Amino acid sequence: MNIDHIGIAVKDIESAKLMYSKILNAAPYKEEIVEEQGVHVVFFKSGKETKVELLQGLHSESPISKYIEKKGEGFHHVAYLVEDINKEIERMISEGFQPLQEKPKKGANNKMVFFFHPKSTGGTLIELCMPIA
Amino acid sequence: MNIDHIGIAVKDIESAKLMYSKILNAAPYKEEIVEEQGVHVVFFKSGKETKVELLQGLHSESPISKYIEKKGEGFHHVAYLVEDINKEIERMISEGFQPLQEKPKKGANNKMVFFFHPKSTGGTLIELCMPIA
Repeated sequence: MNIDHIGIAVKDIESAKLMYSKILNAAPYKEEIVEEQGVHVVFFKSGKETKVELLQGLHSESPISKYIEKKGEGFHHVAYLVEDINKEIERMISEGFQPLQEKPKKGANNKMVFFFHPKSTGGTLIELCMPIA
Repeated sequence: MNIDHIGIAVKDIESAKLMYSKILNAAPYKEEIVEEQGVHVVFFKSGKETKVELLQGLHSESPISKYIEKKGEGFHHVAYLVEDINKEIERMISEGFQPLQEKPKKGANNKMVFFFHPKSTGGTLIELCMPIA
């Protein structure tokens, strides 16, 4: 599976956008509000295949806001791009990885997304994502 | 800058290797002891450009062992591939990012590596890496 992006949890998307423009020496290429996930996201390209996604929670109940409250800002998840998300979910569940949801949901960047519990994957929150046709 | 790899801190490289073979549905392609960094590493390809690096500390004084003691297993760093590491280090320092070392050191996978303090980069440990010619 290919890394599609890494997700970075941030408190203030505007200052994080500025910071990452300096780190990556490039401007963001996409910005989006994803109501279903409760996040405001900004994407930077970091290679032909991969992106850096900054995520700010839209409210205090957003998983990102809760994450920052518990663990602080920084790395949040890694997303792997798959061709058939339902097949990969089934494969990973059959390998013993613990899903965090029942079905794929609409995520950022026109993709269906699905998360696995970090407790079952060695401490790293893993997302599978697939472009919406 | 392109993501070269993400580094995942693990307690037991053998069981982590097995787990990641299941997550990524692929075998590792490289394994290495890097004495200078105090780590035993295993690489998986995850796309044409990117890799997943598993890192186990070689001893209790290894930065990886200390990291796990403090934060637990999981995501440790993201590495960006650069063409001229000294130039990029200079650029990032001039932008205000705080270096964790004085000069690039020999890292895994035949690369020179250099780290920036997560406190200066929004909570994520950032590595710059450049292939050794």
